[in-house]
Formats: sequence, C-alpha cells, structure tokens
Amino acid sequence: MSKPLILVSNDDGITAPGIHHLVKVMAQIGEVVVVAPDGPQSGMGHAITIGNTLRLTEVDIFDHASAYECSGTPADCVKIAKHFVLKDRHPDLVVSGINHGSNTSISVLYSGTMSAAIEAALEGTPAIGFSLCDYANDADFSHTLEYVEKIARQALSKGIPKGVALNVNFPPRQNEPLKGIKVCRQANAKWQEEFDLRYDPHGRRYFWMAGNFVNFDKGEDNDEWAIANNYVSIVPVKYDLTAHHAIMELNEEWEL
Amino acid sequence: MSKPLILVSNDDGITAPGIHHLVKVMAQIGEVVVVAPDGPQSGMGHAITIGNTLRLTEVDIFDHASAYECSGTPADCVKIAKHFVLKDRHPDLVVSGINHGSNTSISVLYSGTMSAAIEAALEGTPAIGFSLCDYANDADFSHTLEYVEKIARQALSKGIPKGVALNVNFPPRQNEPLKGIKVCRQANAKWQEEFDLRYDPHGRRYFWMAGNFVNFDKGEDNDEWAIANNYVSIVPVKYDLTAHHAIMELNEEWEL
Repeated sequence: MSKPLILVSNDDGITAPGIHHLVKVMAQIGEVVVVAPDGPQSGMGHAITIGNTLRLTEVDIFDHASAYECSGTPADCVKIAKHFVLKDRHPDLVVSGINHGSNTSISVLYSGTMSAAIEAALEGTPAIGFSLCDYANDADFSHTLEYVEKIARQALSKGIPKGVALNVNFPPRQNEPLKGIKVCRQANAKWQEEFDLRYDPHGRRYFWMAGNFVNFDKGEDNDEWAIANNYVSIVPVKYDLTAHHAIMELNEEWEL
Repeated sequence: MSKPLILVSNDDGITAPGIHHLVKVMAQIGEVVVVAPDGPQSGMGHAITIGNTLRLTEVDIFDHASAYECSGTPADCVKIAKHFVLKDRHPDLVVSGINHGSNTSISVLYSGTMSAAIEAALEGTPAIGFSLCDYANDADFSHTLEYVEKIARQALSKGIPKGVALNVNFPPRQNEPLKGIKVCRQANAKWQEEFDLRYDPHGRRYFWMAGNFVNFDKGEDNDEWAIANNYVSIVPVKYDLTAHHAIMELNEEWEL
C-alpha cells in the first residue's frame, strides 16, 4: 500500500517552529510535501495574490519532506502546490500550522492557517488547520503532537464531510495533561480593537492596531470553552457562507 | 429626524469609480463618511494589518461626504472608522463597493468588498457589499443605482438579521433592464487556477496566477443563476462558519 500524500502549509512562514513540528508528525504518516510562505502571513485571511507575481523556490530545510517557499499567501501556497508543484498528484490530506496563536471563534475569519485548509477543502481534499493558543515563537508544542497525529489519521481513514475543513485548536501547555477532544461550534466572540496613535520621525501620524478578545458566549459547546477547560477543540467549518435562515426572512419582510 | 449615518468603504481603492457611484447614492439617504483603502486591495479576503502600521489621511474628493484614505485592508478601514474616525458615533449602515467585478459564489471568500461588510456585521451594524459583475474600470453602473438605493433603504428600515451581512451582485449592463431581485444561496462553484510561468530579466522564474470560474451548480436558487438571468442577487452571508451538520458526524463516526 502506498503512503498517503500529505501537503503541509502554514501562515507563520516556512521557518516557524510550528510547521517543523507538523512536518515531523506527518512524516510518520505519509509522504510529505511542504509549500509554505517565505515569511509571516498572519492575519491574511483568505487573501490571494492577483495583482502581483509569485515566486516559488525549492528549499532544503526538512529531513523527511520536499519543501518549497512561496512569496504568496497561505491560500496561494495551496493553489500553487496543487497546480504546479504536485501537478497530476492529488494530496490525500492537507494540513496547515501548527499556528503560533489561537484561531478559535471569530479569529477563523482572519486566519491564514485556516485559509490554507479551506482552500484545500474547496478542491475536495480533506483539510485541517492546527493552532496552538500560545503566541510565543518558542512555545511548547509537545502536548499537541499525539493529538495532531490522531486527528490526521482519523481524517485519512474516515474522511471529512464534503464542503468542510477542520479548525483544531490546542490550549497552551498546562501542568496537567490535555483532557481530550471536544467537537465544538465557533464561539460567539469578537476582537475589540484599539488604535494606538503615534508620530513618525517626520511628524506624520500612524497607528498600530491592537485589540482585546471579548467572549460573549455562555455555552459549553464552543471552542473557547473547550480551550479554557484544557480540551482540544475541533470546529468543522464550511465555505458556503449562505445564512439560509435569513433567506425566508428577507423574502417575507423586505419589499423587493 | 436626524439623517442616518452611513459608512462607505470598498476594496478597489478610494479613487475607483464604483465607490463614487455608491457615495452619490448614499448621500441622498444620509450623512456619509468614507474610509477606504488608498489603493487597490482586491483579493485581500478578510486580511487585517497586525504586523505593520496603518496610515489614515483625510482627503477632499467627494462633494457630499467626509473621506479618509487608509493604507490598510478593507477590514482595517472598517475597524479604524469605528474606533478612531467615528469614535462614539455608531453608523446605522455600512456599505462597501460598488466593486468592479463579481463577488458571487465562492468569490465571497476572497472578496475585500465583502470583508468590509462582514467586519461591520461583526460589530452589529447592518452591512451590505455591492458588486458589479464587470471588471472594467469604466464599467457602466447606471442600471445598478436605483437598486442600490432601494436595498440600502430597506436595510435601514427593516434591518438585517443578526450575524448576517448581504452580498449583492449586479449583472453587467444589458440592452434590457434588470428583471428584479432574487434572494439566493451561494452557488456551488470554484476557481480553476492556472499558473503562468515566466522568467524575469535576471533569469529567475516567477508566476502569474490566472484562473477560470467553473460552475457546478445546477440549481436556480443561487447567485450565479440570478446573474446569468439578469437579476440582482442578494445572498445573506454569515460569519459563524460552523458546519453544524458535521458535528454529529464527527462525534459518531470518528474515534476521538
């Protein structure tokens, strides 16, 4: 039986520790090809490069994987992997991450990690984004690795429902071991931004965007609750954004 | 009665003809504040600027609106509008566009136009993205304007369901008038990319991403069908990406 073909990407860039952990785990499961950004692409959402050119360079930085760095976004990486790097070979699984930082709740919208996974799901490939809720570059990923392997193997053997990608988040490492996995819905929360006004050496003003995460969700079936209670969260996400419940309301209430 | 406060943004940049049409229509309805990118941001999806600074400059380019150009993405524009430009004033409506090009079907994921609207919806503000399925800079928007006004006025009087933004697309101008409005679901379609390999003057390779839109959808209740049949399409979209139907499947079928 031939080994499964696994495409790996991320949004922190190909040199981030998180993707190195992910490649190491995936190399135990299958043949690994990495196509990842040549620098950080956090917060890029589902951006793609359409008004500019892309570079793609083969690099030798992983022991058990062929690898390419790309000048584009995570979504670009998956597209160019499919249409140029892998050509006629179709990956059995696409994994993205392990992100340095949370992609729970509404952060999924801004997440380059998840855009790589969603891009793959669009192509009909089982896809998973993995994120550790710890932003440190030297974050401890050790507690996540057995779960990353377990979830990837389940995706390969059981498949992922059509039109869906998985958003997997891990709590930061605690003294106690992880309690297990919860399949969750996306928590109802948002970022409350603040803009820090400063002046450059030429006297012109500029801003840094900063923000606090505000959780409105009182339920226990959501990803924020899972992370806060030391569970791994899996949220199945879809790219059909239609708010079906609103169609009837618009048809009945609006005068169109 | 005070006039409604309407925030306008887009992703083609503040000098694009489409936003000028939109501002003109909105100025008939309310007080208009424009915060839009200082250059094209197409394809930026829901990107935000977190590792870099933002610039914001007041500009005098609209007759009946105060206006600011911002160095960031459409989502950044809405955030800085709310937290810096408008401060304590809450807009009654946020509109984005009119985009030069289609944002039907899966294009909603890549759309900067829609990310501005979704960002506003996150803040609880009724929000609409408008797009004309004609990419030309000198596209004819004349057939869209009465519908833009009608839809905006309905949003102000009837509201938009919580957690939802509207994705409105217009067919290119035909010889016949538009047939009306259809409330639709997002069509099941995708972009089939091609990467055009070239070499720069230094002999290094680079790529242009290009692609064809492929429609798999055989239904008549979707936005692609509406546009192809000269209707205005309205798709209500939500930012809770949870694939609720998949939660049960994962809980039952997977060994977690």
